[in-house]
Amino acid sequence: MSDRREFRDLAEPETLRETIASLDLSGTPERVPLAEARGRVLAERVDADRDVPGFDRASMDGYAVRAADTFGADEAAPAVLRQVGTVHAGSEPDATVESGTCVEVSTGAVLPPGADAVVIVEETDEVPAHRLPDEGGADAHGASGGDDEASSGDGGVAGDDEASSGDEGVAGDGEASSGDEGVAGDDEASGDGTAVAVRSAVAPGENVMFAGADVAAGARALGPGTELTPREIGLLSALGVDEVPVRGQPTVGIVSTGDELVRPGEPLDDARGEIYDVNSYTIAAGVAEAGGEPRLYPHAGDDYEEMERLLIEASEECDLVLSSGSTSASAVDVIYRVIEDRGELLLHGVAVKPGKPTLVGRIGDGAYVGLPGYPVSALTIFRTFVAPAIREAAGLPAPATATVTGEMAVEERYEGGRRRLVPVGLVTDGDGETLVYPVDKGSGATTSLVDADGVVPVDPDTAFLAAGETVEVELFSPSVRPPTLFGVGEDDPALSRLLDRLDRPRYLPEGSRRGLRELRAGVPDVAVTAGPLDREPPGVELGGWRREWGLIVPPGNPADVTGVADLVDRELRFVNRDGDSGLRTSFGNAVADLADERDTVRRALVASIDGFDRAVRAHESPARRVLAGDADVGLGLRATADRLDAGFVSVGTQRVRLWAATDRQSKPGVDRLRAVLADSDAILAALPGYGLDAT
Amino acid sequence: MSDRREFRDLAEPETLRETIASLDLSGTPERVPLAEARGRVLAERVDADRDVPGFDRASMDGYAVRAADTFGADEAAPAVLRQVGTVHAGSEPDATVESGTCVEVSTGAVLPPGADAVVIVEETDEVPAHRLPDEGGADAHGASGGDDEASSGDGGVAGDDEASSGDEGVAGDGEASSGDEGVAGDDEASGDGTAVAVRSAVAPGENVMFAGADVAAGARALGPGTELTPREIGLLSALGVDEVPVRGQPTVGIVSTGDELVRPGEPLDDARGEIYDVNSYTIAAGVAEAGGEPRLYPHAGDDYEEMERLLIEASEECDLVLSSGSTSASAVDVIYRVIEDRGELLLHGVAVKPGKPTLVGRIGDGAYVGLPGYPVSALTIFRTFVAPAIREAAGLPAPATATVTGEMAVEERYEGGRRRLVPVGLVTDGDGETLVYPVDKGSGATTSLVDADGVVPVDPDTAFLAAGETVEVELFSPSVRPPTLFGVGEDDPALSRLLDRLDRPRYLPEGSRRGLRELRAGVPDVAVTAGPLDREPPGVELGGWRREWGLIVPPGNPADVTGVADLVDRELRFVNRDGDSGLRTSFGNAVADLADERDTVRRALVASIDGFDRAVRAHESPARRVLAGDADVGLGLRATADRLDAGFVSVGTQRVRLWAATDRQSKPGVDRLRAVLADSDAILAALPGYGLDAT
Repeated sequence: MSDRREFRDLAEPETLRETIASLDLSGTPERVPLAEARGRVLAERVDADRDVPGFDRASMDGYAVRAADTFGADEAAPAVLRQVGTVHAGSEPDATVESGTCVEVSTGAVLPPGADAVVIVEETDEVPAHRLPDEGGADAHGASGGDDEASSGDGGVAGDDEASSGDEGVAGDGEASSGDEGVAGDDEASGDGTAVAVRSAVAPGENVMFAGADVAAGARALGPGTELTPREIGLLSALGVDEVPVRGQPTVGIVSTGDELVRPGEPLDDARGEIYDVNSYTIAAGVAEAGGEPRLYPHAGDDYEEMERLLIEASEECDLVLSSGSTSASAVDVIYRVIEDRGELLLHGVAVKPGKPTLVGRIGDGAYVGLPGYPVSALTIFRTFVAPAIREAAGLPAPATATVTGEMAVEERYEGGRRRLVPVGLVTDGDGETLVYPVDKGSGATTSLVDADGVVPVDPDTAFLAAGETVEVELFSPSVRPPTLFGVGEDDPALSRLLDRLDRPRYLPEGSRRGLRELRAGVPDVAVTAGPLDREPPGVELGGWRREWGLIVPPGNPADVTGVADLVDRELRFVNRDGDSGLRTSFGNAVADLADERDTVRRALVASIDGFDRAVRAHESPARRVLAGDADVGLGLRATADRLDAGFVSVGTQRVRLWAATDRQSKPGVDRLRAVLADSDAILAALPGYGLDAT
Repeated sequence: MSDRREFRDLAEPETLRETIASLDLSGTPERVPLAEARGRVLAERVDADRDVPGFDRASMDGYAVRAADTFGADEAAPAVLRQVGTVHAGSEPDATVESGTCVEVSTGAVLPPGADAVVIVEETDEVPAHRLPDEGGADAHGASGGDDEASSGDGGVAGDDEASSGDEGVAGDGEASSGDEGVAGDDEASGDGTAVAVRSAVAPGENVMFAGADVAAGARALGPGTELTPREIGLLSALGVDEVPVRGQPTVGIVSTGDELVRPGEPLDDARGEIYDVNSYTIAAGVAEAGGEPRLYPHAGDDYEEMERLLIEASEECDLVLSSGSTSASAVDVIYRVIEDRGELLLHGVAVKPGKPTLVGRIGDGAYVGLPGYPVSALTIFRTFVAPAIREAAGLPAPATATVTGEMAVEERYEGGRRRLVPVGLVTDGDGETLVYPVDKGSGATTSLVDADGVVPVDPDTAFLAAGETVEVELFSPSVRPPTLFGVGEDDPALSRLLDRLDRPRYLPEGSRRGLRELRAGVPDVAVTAGPLDREPPGVELGGWRREWGLIVPPGNPADVTGVADLVDRELRFVNRDGDSGLRTSFGNAVADLADERDTVRRALVASIDGFDRAVRAHESPARRVLAGDADVGLGLRATADRLDAGFVSVGTQRVRLWAATDRQSKPGVDRLRAVLADSDAILAALPGYGLDAT
């Protein structure tokens, strides 16, 4: 251990941030199809290389007209125009609008030559052509009135009192229509060759989008650095762009290290201390979330040559190499030596908790960051220091500020010396206020990943956060919200199923005693207990059920175990539950009852049970040890024995009870739990040994 | 037009929401590799099927011991233990810890049999083995003192005054060590067979994570409906899960309709009124953003059989079919008939603006929503009503509340009748307050997509929003923030390049006059003008440059144009710029100068110019018309002629000037613009006809 690395001169967190910022993580710009461009960032300015629209475009269904022909038209005295054609969207106009004529247009159609406005169809009536003024006469838009309206019949409503904004001759200038359709003489009121009565005036340009009015050729459409959301993709579509120049996504190689790590999905050897590699997939997901492209490298053990080969390979293929995985000093030492030999170590050791063993350097000519081994530490350092640099290189904006303020539910004390990023959970109290509680499950606990909602930064010189103190929580993501229900207590399969029916509950299966302690401390909404209680719980009972418990033995009960007495009297290896478990309490009581029968003390019998103190945390674990051959008898539930096909020797039943904190009884999540409880029959019926609580 | 669909009984927006919610959009659950699970949603509860860790695990580097052997140890009187082995992470222990012995362990190693705690290496010293108490003696951890500390030498420091929390015999019980290594008799202080002085006591369990302490077999790890972020992926990794049951992503077929639409990337025929299909890619990106899987179908024209075939095909392959694209009544009519014939129309027409022509129905046995044709309308209806249903079906939470409040910068009046979702932009004023201004570029403008930041819902009975009124803006996404700089004014290629150096600027190239009007109204930070001004602008000048302008002609100037007089005197088809453009002002002044020369009035000369009123919006558009053969002469810049390889006849130079609103002078974005302006030499040097403003 003499060559073990010590981090004596710890860098300040700000120095870590600056050192990572000094690395060049930028990826290679590329061109991607528009259909795949969402979330990417423009590498260059995009100028419009055409007008949008590319033609004068009708923006409503109606009739293309010369605006001047409509001046003065109203309900009483509509302007009557001869229809000389129809243009649909997507077809070329085959008629010209001259004074006194119009062309039917659909939305999106090309405005026919000669027209300068569109009258919407709702302001028109089709009329028989014989109502048209005389062809070639002096007044091209005289009207004989539409519909049943009394018509003034004065043969001309040209709005001489309206300001004319065009240079076109106003109505009455006597331009003959050049339309070559014959004028329909019958009463048919549809199709070309008939007439249209226009009931209101339009100004030039009305209901028309002129060419280039949306985007003009040569205009700056989008600047470099623009993130492409559906809206920008819409604008690029309008410009006809089908391939976009975007910034490269930084490629991030992830090298997982440590002899003890195994990729998820592969078999694990507990005896050798193997564990699943948590950091690789976690950090890969974090890289993708930050806009990088993660690349997983094969697992490296603690061998120098192998590590060197992998790190060099990754540094040649990626913009950034992250090593991540092992907590073992030997693996870290190997990496350390490779970086010193083949690159440059810029920083090692940071005065932040978690995160002390963070490394920053270069390998080959690529960037390198070594993350701490524990998953929570690795993800915290990644999120706080590495992800911002990846986002910056990808050109993505920092995520929306995601902080909430809340009150500390309990006091929390700290040893000084390092800045801390304390993982915390959130819970809403009965008044809807946010409470904050520390989540500290010990180094290396992966459940802290999901049991916490964010971190509270704590200065090195802060000795404690007082209960009730207001703190600001940096949420893990802007979408994080407090769970609708927060419970702590006994682990129970019926409860697991009930929780499935709630929206985003959080439940910590820490045992009955722990549940009651936390409920007393004012943290969770609900505690769940099993078995007898020492004293009255600090809340109101919501309901519960019964469950049958006993001794779990191998299938067929080969040792012919009949009850608790066998554990005392025979050489049987037993696995108990931990002290917070309600199962253990009931078991302890059964041993005490046996002691009473035998006129001795419980302590004496306990001493005779091989494994009374071999305590495990969850309701299935003893059964699994029995099935694995590591024990002869385990404490557990009939439902567990049944599920795992183990043998079962019944000892008793115990009550599982749900307790709500007094001030949270009307919280919506508690209400919902009450409703779900009232409808729990099917869940209980499906679990062997379960039933409604008789009391 | 007699069969044109009218929407007379418009549904309330809430009815639209409910009707869409009544459709079943849920996708088929599937199993995905953990590496691809980010952003997906668990379809089922995941219970732990193993303990994590699977063994009692050292959580620090140090020495595995029996805690009782260390009771009472301190600096002055360390407990000296014989080291009988070493366990690294990933290897099986080959030694057992008996009283008086220890095993070196690295973080993550299996705790060797017999040990119940780990002493961290920092609290130990390696010592020569001869300092060990006598082998097999009665006192296994007696100490002869470490280092230079005075040793009491009393042969036992077992902490009888320390509370012992274990049932194990305390030190001094006389268990003989069974270690078979010989005790090294020399001074070597490393390796097995030597001794370790422990300077502080540990409690049983200290620095050890017991099997199942993180996650216990059988425990509920993650509930159904959990969104998989890096944190949940971490927990699943720890459980060894490499494939996850997730909810299906709703597949959303997008059928684009309308004879006039062309996919981006393909050639466009302006004469036929073709435009690029904006909605397909935009809505596809929106679908992906909402957690759905978009599928684009080939473009359908307005033909009934083709549309029917496509809609039926899409409905069989997708959970939801969206039609989207055409604004033409005929295309909508065709879809309407197909839905009526082959499905069921549940709702048509909604009292919301934009969005009136929205359709909801079923086709085959699939869900169908017909979006309005205009891109802004389509995206607004999609975002407001369809995306929430897709997210719900995908199991994703509603996005974080994304609203900001701000003050209306200007008054905005409405006709009543329909609820409105008014697109607005945001700008920060000089005091850092958020101002809100309406973005209304007319139906069908795609630039509204990117020029707006969100919408303000306005009730049907609201007649106007007053300037200064506080409104709540629903942002298009939580990451939307006001641009760092907002400008309006002349379109200019040097300006485009300067803007590239700013972070997220917004610039509307609406012309010099429009820029000044908006600056007077208090909306933008900056206005940009070109050419002479009617009156003093309402702001402070930041700087500017000169640009050369004139007449753009075909390459080689085939018509031998020499100046403005040719436009008056000869039959040349001219293309002007629009009235807000500073280029048009300068051109108008040149015509006026010519009129002075000829002793006539400007108006007379203007009447002789064919196309004086043929005005287009952007600086390149006249040049492009000339090059396309649609005109003989266009108004434009030398830089534009050069870029497009057109001919150029110089007429003059004009000043381009940047004006900051008086109250925004110290806004960071304005400061940054000032800095960029001061460093604009290279940009100006690269543009023909550009130079520093001499004044």
